[in-house]
Amino acid sequence: MKQLILAVTLALAAPATAQPTGDLGLIVERASGSLLVVDQSDRAALGRIEGLGDLSHASLVYSPDERFAYVFGRDGGLTKVDILEQAVVNRVMQAGNSIGGAISDDGRLVAVSNYEPGGVRIFDADTLDMVADIPTGSKTIGLVDIPGRRFVFTLWDEGETWIADLSGGTPEITRIEGIGDRPYDALVTADGRTYIAGLFGADHLTALDLWQDAPQPRPILPGYAAGREDLPVYKMPHLEGWALAGQDFVLPAVGQHEVLWVDARSLEETGRTATHGQPVFAMARPDGRQVWVNFAHPDNDTIQVIDSVTKQVVHQFAPGPGVLHMEFTPRGHEVWLSVRDAGKVMVYDTQSFEKLREIDAESPSGIFFTARAHRTGL
Amino acid sequence: MKQLILAVTLALAAPATAQPTGDLGLIVERASGSLLVVDQSDRAALGRIEGLGDLSHASLVYSPDERFAYVFGRDGGLTKVDILEQAVVNRVMQAGNSIGGAISDDGRLVAVSNYEPGGVRIFDADTLDMVADIPTGSKTIGLVDIPGRRFVFTLWDEGETWIADLSGGTPEITRIEGIGDRPYDALVTADGRTYIAGLFGADHLTALDLWQDAPQPRPILPGYAAGREDLPVYKMPHLEGWALAGQDFVLPAVGQHEVLWVDARSLEETGRTATHGQPVFAMARPDGRQVWVNFAHPDNDTIQVIDSVTKQVVHQFAPGPGVLHMEFTPRGHEVWLSVRDAGKVMVYDTQSFEKLREIDAESPSGIFFTARAHRTGL
Repeated sequence: MKQLILAVTLALAAPATAQPTGDLGLIVERASGSLLVVDQSDRAALGRIEGLGDLSHASLVYSPDERFAYVFGRDGGLTKVDILEQAVVNRVMQAGNSIGGAISDDGRLVAVSNYEPGGVRIFDADTLDMVADIPTGSKTIGLVDIPGRRFVFTLWDEGETWIADLSGGTPEITRIEGIGDRPYDALVTADGRTYIAGLFGADHLTALDLWQDAPQPRPILPGYAAGREDLPVYKMPHLEGWALAGQDFVLPAVGQHEVLWVDARSLEETGRTATHGQPVFAMARPDGRQVWVNFAHPDNDTIQVIDSVTKQVVHQFAPGPGVLHMEFTPRGHEVWLSVRDAGKVMVYDTQSFEKLREIDAESPSGIFFTARAHRTGL
Repeated sequence: MKQLILAVTLALAAPATAQPTGDLGLIVERASGSLLVVDQSDRAALGRIEGLGDLSHASLVYSPDERFAYVFGRDGGLTKVDILEQAVVNRVMQAGNSIGGAISDDGRLVAVSNYEPGGVRIFDADTLDMVADIPTGSKTIGLVDIPGRRFVFTLWDEGETWIADLSGGTPEITRIEGIGDRPYDALVTADGRTYIAGLFGADHLTALDLWQDAPQPRPILPGYAAGREDLPVYKMPHLEGWALAGQDFVLPAVGQHEVLWVDARSLEETGRTATHGQPVFAMARPDGRQVWVNFAHPDNDTIQVIDSVTKQVVHQFAPGPGVLHMEFTPRGHEVWLSVRDAGKVMVYDTQSFEKLREIDAESPSGIFFTARAHRTGL
């Protein structure tokens, strides 16, 4: 019955009237390999796009016009969907096992990071034809876009970060050695300047200043993970959760019941906040004044909200079982939460913490609003 | 003939196919009281919207869905346009003389700042019905939105800044005295935290930390304008041009041939760069690595590009007579320039500085891309 209702909605919505795209979004339904198309302003689902394969750990990026999404599946599938027509428009199996992607600043190139075979492959955003293949001989992680039609990524086995410059058509590669033992994830700051890799085999992270002509690896937060053997790591924290809150970045501590605060300029630790469980995402509201944190099993029914000036928890609540992901509206007045085991996406007012709406979804995980099209390094 | 071609384009473009809105924009044509609708990806004009009255010093903001723009005319007109239908959908004459506006974080309220009668009026974004009138007994300047359905603005005559909180429906006003002698413009940082007013009657600016419970005025850059009597001020610098470039804000110096660099954290001056003329806008590329500067008459044919690490001019060129405004694509790979007296908008690659396209426009001034919908304080 739900399928029927959604199909009718689609038939009415898609061709009838002009549909702007600035406040739309896609929600990954991991169990069913589908995407729910949503409207932020109406706090409603508009339809469903099916046939995307294995969407566990899926992520996606948007075209600059906010019409198309490029979906990176764990199974190596790269799928282009049209959110106005609510349809898959192209799909290629580009590798055996992939781990995320990025889109160039001009929107012309889509890059995918692969474990098997290890490397990065780059596709024409219109046609999904492969335009460059960059084998690395290693599992490849932490792929991001930076200005100037460039991509940055890191080699798990080699501990190297590579910068691929596509401005001239064929990739020019800059290799930076000495990143550290088994980098497992990485991020770039919103200005595309600072690239930070998390290390599985060392007790620090490594930062690169990409504005330097020859970026040099710099260890940061030495010993930050001391004691992480004390607790089992139920889930590796997502470094993409780093976000600027006031003058600090906030980082979910590996294996600890706390978040770390790191000065955005010096990259020195400035404090820790004890939390309800092992944090998975610590996401700053777009204005940076508050940070919302979700947790690993068995505490994944709970959200804590931390004030970024006092570094104190100011609100705690339990939306429901399996809170997997959060996405703020672009100016931060509302937040959407995926509550997987409730089969719901829940919308909250970020000022009053009032629940505004529940939307049915099939095992929802990642939530991606179209405003991401305009940001670097996501 | 041009009108005819545009009309045909409009007829083809508007209803035929789905039109996403993420890469659109509007360009103010001040002499003809019209707006040119443009597409960033195609680097092309899609059509023209006419009948907007006096558009000298006009500005505009976008609805969260990037479909509607609210245009603030100097004549007190508030006009709502639909960029998908390329039409005026509503227009009210809300005051005798107005000076800009803002839209609340939830997109529900549009506020306009007025000289005559002095104050701020707030309108329902759907209907343009007035929902609140805040008379100030003073010319009112520097109106911005901040999170939590709030607006901030400043009184020229009284030297006060007011915060209007609309979260409860009717405005709750917080008055902050002691801003200084005749504030003429103000800005808020992208996180909505720091509000800075320029003063006509004093040799400093005044900053407020809006995260404080009771924000206290703090003088910054004392003596920054010393010597401004030496040169005539052809045009008051636009404080909205302040933008974060690396760790600094860049500020066009009043009446001087230079830009000032101000530490974004301490608000202390960190350097000055000599420029070709009196700067009007000093705008950071979205990644902050370079700053583009245009100038007052008689140097308004020229652009200089400054590196924000070395603070040195790295490029200079003359696009043509009357360069009035610049707008970067959201991720900064291209920049559009209004060259008024050439009747052209010119599009440049920001990496190679190559000119990519010229687009005909009637005395173009302000350029506004739809990605502004997702940003605070514009």
